[in-house]
Amino acid sequence: MIIKDMGNEIKRLVILGSTGSIGQQALEVVRSFPHRFQIIGLAAGNNIDLLEKQIAEFKPKFVYYQNSRNQLTNNECKFLPLEDMVCHSLVDIVVIATSGKVGLKPTLAAIKAGKNVALANKEPLVMAGELITSEAKIHKVQILPIDSEHSAIWQCLSGETQPVSQLILTASGGPFRHYSPDQLDRVTAQQALAHPTWQMGKKVTIDSATLMNKGLEVIEARWLFNTPYDQIKVLIHPQSIIHSMVEFIDGSIKAQLGYPDMRIPIQYALSYPERLSNPQLPKLEWNHINNLTFEQPNFDTFSCFKLASEAGGKGGTYPAVLCAADEVAVDLFLSQRIKFTDIPILIEKILDQHQPIAHPSLEEIITADSWARDKITKLAIGDN
Amino acid sequence: MIIKDMGNEIKRLVILGSTGSIGQQALEVVRSFPHRFQIIGLAAGNNIDLLEKQIAEFKPKFVYYQNSRNQLTNNECKFLPLEDMVCHSLVDIVVIATSGKVGLKPTLAAIKAGKNVALANKEPLVMAGELITSEAKIHKVQILPIDSEHSAIWQCLSGETQPVSQLILTASGGPFRHYSPDQLDRVTAQQALAHPTWQMGKKVTIDSATLMNKGLEVIEARWLFNTPYDQIKVLIHPQSIIHSMVEFIDGSIKAQLGYPDMRIPIQYALSYPERLSNPQLPKLEWNHINNLTFEQPNFDTFSCFKLASEAGGKGGTYPAVLCAADEVAVDLFLSQRIKFTDIPILIEKILDQHQPIAHPSLEEIITADSWARDKITKLAIGDN
Repeated sequence: MIIKDMGNEIKRLVILGSTGSIGQQALEVVRSFPHRFQIIGLAAGNNIDLLEKQIAEFKPKFVYYQNSRNQLTNNECKFLPLEDMVCHSLVDIVVIATSGKVGLKPTLAAIKAGKNVALANKEPLVMAGELITSEAKIHKVQILPIDSEHSAIWQCLSGETQPVSQLILTASGGPFRHYSPDQLDRVTAQQALAHPTWQMGKKVTIDSATLMNKGLEVIEARWLFNTPYDQIKVLIHPQSIIHSMVEFIDGSIKAQLGYPDMRIPIQYALSYPERLSNPQLPKLEWNHINNLTFEQPNFDTFSCFKLASEAGGKGGTYPAVLCAADEVAVDLFLSQRIKFTDIPILIEKILDQHQPIAHPSLEEIITADSWARDKITKLAIGDN
Repeated sequence: MIIKDMGNEIKRLVILGSTGSIGQQALEVVRSFPHRFQIIGLAAGNNIDLLEKQIAEFKPKFVYYQNSRNQLTNNECKFLPLEDMVCHSLVDIVVIATSGKVGLKPTLAAIKAGKNVALANKEPLVMAGELITSEAKIHKVQILPIDSEHSAIWQCLSGETQPVSQLILTASGGPFRHYSPDQLDRVTAQQALAHPTWQMGKKVTIDSATLMNKGLEVIEARWLFNTPYDQIKVLIHPQSIIHSMVEFIDGSIKAQLGYPDMRIPIQYALSYPERLSNPQLPKLEWNHINNLTFEQPNFDTFSCFKLASEAGGKGGTYPAVLCAADEVAVDLFLSQRIKFTDIPILIEKILDQHQPIAHPSLEEIITADSWARDKITKLAIGDN
């Protein structure tokens, strides 16, 4: 359905990761508002069939496919490397909907070119938060969060001018929140991929089950909202209706709520500072909501969160090593080469062995990332 | 405890109803910030002992006591009629913490004198919403809501520029929310005065028990936020933690939460647009909150809400008649001359007999008020 509205400003977008979960949902939003959003570029990793369909529908000027340009049958759009595409003068907003570290370089390139960045990919800010936020300041670029928790906090901060007393990130707690360590030991990839409230990509779904995802979000929040770690709290809220909260210095709290559907925060990031009426987005039905529940997280059992908090607190190259080790560990778990409970054990070993660098450059971050990937792979296959 | 802060702007206040529940709590806030707030005038109705203590502590320049100036022993402050006090050039903000219709004339006088008005008293906006909001517009005056629900909505609207799709007023539901009509028939004043979550004055506590209070709040919200009645909903939330919510056109909802303590919205209204850190204000303890529950209101049993909605929808002098009839009916109930369930029956009879005037002047509103008071008193004592 095409939605008519009175606005006349067109935002021109590049979407990196257009065939992933967030990328597809971003295109759904674009499809609803053809007079407000135009696709300038699409980039994808593995799903060439879907990418070709997207090219046929949205007619981007530029395209990038990770494996080879020759596989693409559509010749009307120009093949461009990611970093050239995001910097192109036609582009207003770059949507980083990639997964893992692949979004880091294009995010930095887009910011240095003065493009606003709608960020769904956590790793760039976790790996290089100091670098990215300082470049964004220099180039007067806005980082528009897409993650539901950060979108919630961003919305709650609207119109507020003073420092906050607390950010409260909510967490569904994942499918295993009441599991004992013994039960966790036997968790299969299939079980871990069945998230109770959100439809997401594989990597973030596993990260949700280990609570690593919440740890990464805390680091992301620290950079996005310039808030010290001791003022960022996590609260388990299994229904995923309250997406996060902000407590102000007078004890007043604002929360953002909504049906757990990523199109809502995606659309907000793209339409900001406007809100667009979109009947396709689900609304909360209060006659069906009887109960919102809250629990304190169990970080002893879900130690990935603790590892992330510690890495964030130490700073430097630690968070990059955390991300790299986690990305490899999740892959190893999904390919059934390690157990669910091996994920934090392996990551902790890598963090313990890391020689950190403070205030790292992009090159130093990438070196730390490579070191960690190499190290954890060797550790896992018993080669170390 | 006096709280030091860096601000240097002093706001000069008049508090009407300083010995009532809201008045006393407003003075608690003022006591915490002697470098930010100064009391210029105090006015009270019946509690002369407390008023004299307040005068001794806050040393206002002006004072008003409803019964007679001669009863006051303190001669250092000048006796001034309400409408002169609120208009005085020394005054920045007038806090209307009175109860019932007594706040109407001073509210209008303050607005016409260009004073910002912090409004805790519902009746002025309910009786004369059209008049008050149009005068506020003309005189560029801000109406700062103190009621927890309206403060919540106001905070949620901060930074938002577009029309909303829905205001959701939460309601504790009062002490009788699951009572049958038969049980309501036997309710005593003592039972009705025991509100489950909020400490408030008698009139508003009884209005909470009948849900009339929520009906008045809907009318108030209609005028404060210029929102049509069909976009204002009520949701029962017995814990009174979420104070109200706003749904935006994209399906995103913002809520304001806090410990149920009126000092939080009072302080926000006084310090706006700033927020002040105040350790005396309680904060929500999320490790003690397991559960927030929601129910649909039962307007068939609590018909006062329906009467208020209908009166609001019809407009004109109907809401003034509603307020007057309710004020008298609550008094009659508190003095045990009518039953709890007689309250809506009497109010409905008065509304049915009323000959309304559209877009009424202040005089027409006051005439309708007097007519209704006279009529309901006669009806109740069987003289009609």
